[in-house]
Amino acid sequence: MNKRKIISIIGKIILIEAVLMIPSLLVSAYYRDGDTAAFACTMIPALIIGLLFSMVKQSDKRMSSRDGYFIVAAAWIIISLIGALPLYLSGGFPSYWSALFEIVSGFSTTGASVLARPEELGHGVLFWRSFTHWIGGMGVLVFVLMVMPMENDNSMHLVRAEVPGPTAGKLVPRMRTTSMILYGIYTAMTVVLLVLLLIGRMPLFDSFCIAFGTAGTGGFAVNSAGIAGYGSAYIEIVLGIFMLLFGINFNMYHLILLGKIKDVLKSEEVKVYLGIVFLATAAISINTFSNVIGVGTTIRNAFFQVSSIITTSGFATVDFNFWPEFSKHTLVLLMIIGACAGSTGGGFKISRLIILVKAFLAEIRHIITPKAVITVRIDGKSLDKDTLNSTKIYAGAYMILICVFTWILSLDGKDMTTNLTAVLSCFNNIGPGLSQVGPMNNFSVFSDWAQVLLSVAMLTGRLEIFPMFLLFAKSTHDR
Amino acid sequence: MNKRKIISIIGKIILIEAVLMIPSLLVSAYYRDGDTAAFACTMIPALIIGLLFSMVKQSDKRMSSRDGYFIVAAAWIIISLIGALPLYLSGGFPSYWSALFEIVSGFSTTGASVLARPEELGHGVLFWRSFTHWIGGMGVLVFVLMVMPMENDNSMHLVRAEVPGPTAGKLVPRMRTTSMILYGIYTAMTVVLLVLLLIGRMPLFDSFCIAFGTAGTGGFAVNSAGIAGYGSAYIEIVLGIFMLLFGINFNMYHLILLGKIKDVLKSEEVKVYLGIVFLATAAISINTFSNVIGVGTTIRNAFFQVSSIITTSGFATVDFNFWPEFSKHTLVLLMIIGACAGSTGGGFKISRLIILVKAFLAEIRHIITPKAVITVRIDGKSLDKDTLNSTKIYAGAYMILICVFTWILSLDGKDMTTNLTAVLSCFNNIGPGLSQVGPMNNFSVFSDWAQVLLSVAMLTGRLEIFPMFLLFAKSTHDR
Repeated sequence: MNKRKIISIIGKIILIEAVLMIPSLLVSAYYRDGDTAAFACTMIPALIIGLLFSMVKQSDKRMSSRDGYFIVAAAWIIISLIGALPLYLSGGFPSYWSALFEIVSGFSTTGASVLARPEELGHGVLFWRSFTHWIGGMGVLVFVLMVMPMENDNSMHLVRAEVPGPTAGKLVPRMRTTSMILYGIYTAMTVVLLVLLLIGRMPLFDSFCIAFGTAGTGGFAVNSAGIAGYGSAYIEIVLGIFMLLFGINFNMYHLILLGKIKDVLKSEEVKVYLGIVFLATAAISINTFSNVIGVGTTIRNAFFQVSSIITTSGFATVDFNFWPEFSKHTLVLLMIIGACAGSTGGGFKISRLIILVKAFLAEIRHIITPKAVITVRIDGKSLDKDTLNSTKIYAGAYMILICVFTWILSLDGKDMTTNLTAVLSCFNNIGPGLSQVGPMNNFSVFSDWAQVLLSVAMLTGRLEIFPMFLLFAKSTHDR
Repeated sequence: MNKRKIISIIGKIILIEAVLMIPSLLVSAYYRDGDTAAFACTMIPALIIGLLFSMVKQSDKRMSSRDGYFIVAAAWIIISLIGALPLYLSGGFPSYWSALFEIVSGFSTTGASVLARPEELGHGVLFWRSFTHWIGGMGVLVFVLMVMPMENDNSMHLVRAEVPGPTAGKLVPRMRTTSMILYGIYTAMTVVLLVLLLIGRMPLFDSFCIAFGTAGTGGFAVNSAGIAGYGSAYIEIVLGIFMLLFGINFNMYHLILLGKIKDVLKSEEVKVYLGIVFLATAAISINTFSNVIGVGTTIRNAFFQVSSIITTSGFATVDFNFWPEFSKHTLVLLMIIGACAGSTGGGFKISRLIILVKAFLAEIRHIITPKAVITVRIDGKSLDKDTLNSTKIYAGAYMILICVFTWILSLDGKDMTTNLTAVLSCFNNIGPGLSQVGPMNNFSVFSDWAQVLLSVAMLTGRLEIFPMFLLFAKSTHDR
């Protein structure tokens, strides 16, 4: 392993995190919420350590693919450990582990909270919490690549390990330009959303926080009333649509910018994604319809929750814990499926689902005609063997990990629906679950150790399993 | 497809089923339970149809692998449809669909029942119900192969489609001899168990039924008190051990007969299987320990339920619905894992789990050293590509099917724990679930359509997914 290079990159990441805390520090100072010192006490040591680390003399040796995975996993853990400090120092959390859960939930864009009343936090901390959604959504390393020059090969390894989905997109040959395009589109869409929220008369501070949470498909609310508290159908519709948009592969927006709209329309993943949203909304609308609230509100509520859950945002406008069983089960199914690859959303990813189903059909054809060579095609192109293989392994590992996490969590004594949906919610970076972790409850029901376990689940899910395991693979330390 | 051959084989299967009903008819006549006519009215038409079908002139054309899958799937559906008739005609079931659920549960060795009080059935029907466990355990087609001469290649296709696990074992070159060895070992072990139960003063009729249910890892009880009703620690220990034995790959017993005990001790699957049983028993013993019942009973209860659930038998001596959450979650985990390949038990199978974990580790090694050729080895032999590939696809298909079945079942309005554990229980051929389908409840809580859905789940799980889908694959009808 290229240890010097790794230390130097991690140093730069710590530096950048300290810099990214500046807006929150300013917000805290502006609102005089008393947490300015909490930020300063985090930023100053971080700047010093970051500088020291980044000054480590680098060798010219190229990074390997496993170095990339290692850096990504280590970076996410370190920024979480540091990012939790202002929350803990602000005094708003019962323990450092709760603060860590909250910030891992932020960076991983999960949006699960241990707080019943987030409004009791200061504005600076609230802003930081939501801002981590925005950074985590598109990726910490992708951000780093944009501001820090790096060899193209090396940066490709980082992006491959961080960007969700079975195939990491390279929009243009140079990775740095790719990062810039991605963050450019991301920023532009966030700004449009921000303006639309302000037009809907959402308070300025809330608009920023909610826009960050929507763009990163995170889902932290600013107060305990959540999105329903704004009492605005307009805001719900705007957010419902924008969550959906942020759940689409960002390559599509790049294609649109290049005028290749035909390619977007041909994308199987987008078609399946929108199809599932449409069918789930229809099914839940029929299942939850009541004359009391009327057709319009029924459909709006269904669409909002579907969009929120499939994109793994996790905002809620109704307490779906009280929906009929079929609707609840539908939401859990959407929790597992998740959004498109290369989006800010989490979950298993639509493209993986498509690949799995096609691989299954290919296996059936293989049984029927054993001698024929059968390839799996996506968008007309045949999938390379490595992607196909790692997708199938991903499915197995996903299933085993969900089972193991749920099993260990049961030691905390909660019922099965709570444990299973808490793990699904954390691993898929959604936010709310059902039963004791329903949308109107929070994760403070779990003990400290269970919160740490769920934090590990959030990071493992966000980084899609492999980086976290490579961190502990023996041979990554050997050489 | 070789249609004439398929019809002729299915005809023979129907004939054999009618013959297999003779003992039940005799039991019914002996006890004068009034159901003798129900058996006669099923057997006579079955004999006629079976004779007509089997007289269809066969072509000499060889069967293909897909013909094998097709026959197995079709055969299991047809024997279930016919096998349900005596149950329905006896009048003990509210509808034909309930009777079908019960007999599918029998053949698939699930042991889930729609009856609160099975003792209200006649002895003949009770005997038939338990006897289907015994036939289904080792396999209907494996039985057919034993009594019916067939070309070796053709029979290999049938065995591959019916015997559980990623690799179908061929004990000796001739498949007919293989079937005979398998059924020989199976019968011998069943007889030993029967004698041990009689020594434990279990009534003769009960001993037969419980021995069938244990050998097939089915789990139908003879009365509502279940195994606990015999109030004998001896019987519980004997059954606990024999369930465990029937959950081991039968190739191991063949190896023991050949004196190759070293090979048995080397088997990774057996080691992992016994290891899991030991750990789960220990964990549950600690978790459920109470001074009221004492250490001995605690361990015996834990061991019995663990053995019953991991082998997918489904007998219960305590109502584990009231156990602490961790123990309940442990049982659900065992439900998913299941027994060894090539045994009478169901579930995902230990060997598949081993292959998946090894494939995952191989993928990690592949990331670390991308150029190295990495093979997955089981018992020191490297696994062939096809088995590895189909195991990975199986994991994905398994996960998708569990989700889809649970989702559709939720339309019946039950809670998530009930739906999920009902599907896991049926798909893995276990028997009891949790919540409303706990060990002291039964499946009559579900509506008719839901029972049919769960019957499909039982058959799909028993035949391990592929045959059921090949039945509907378009090209199997084309050619």
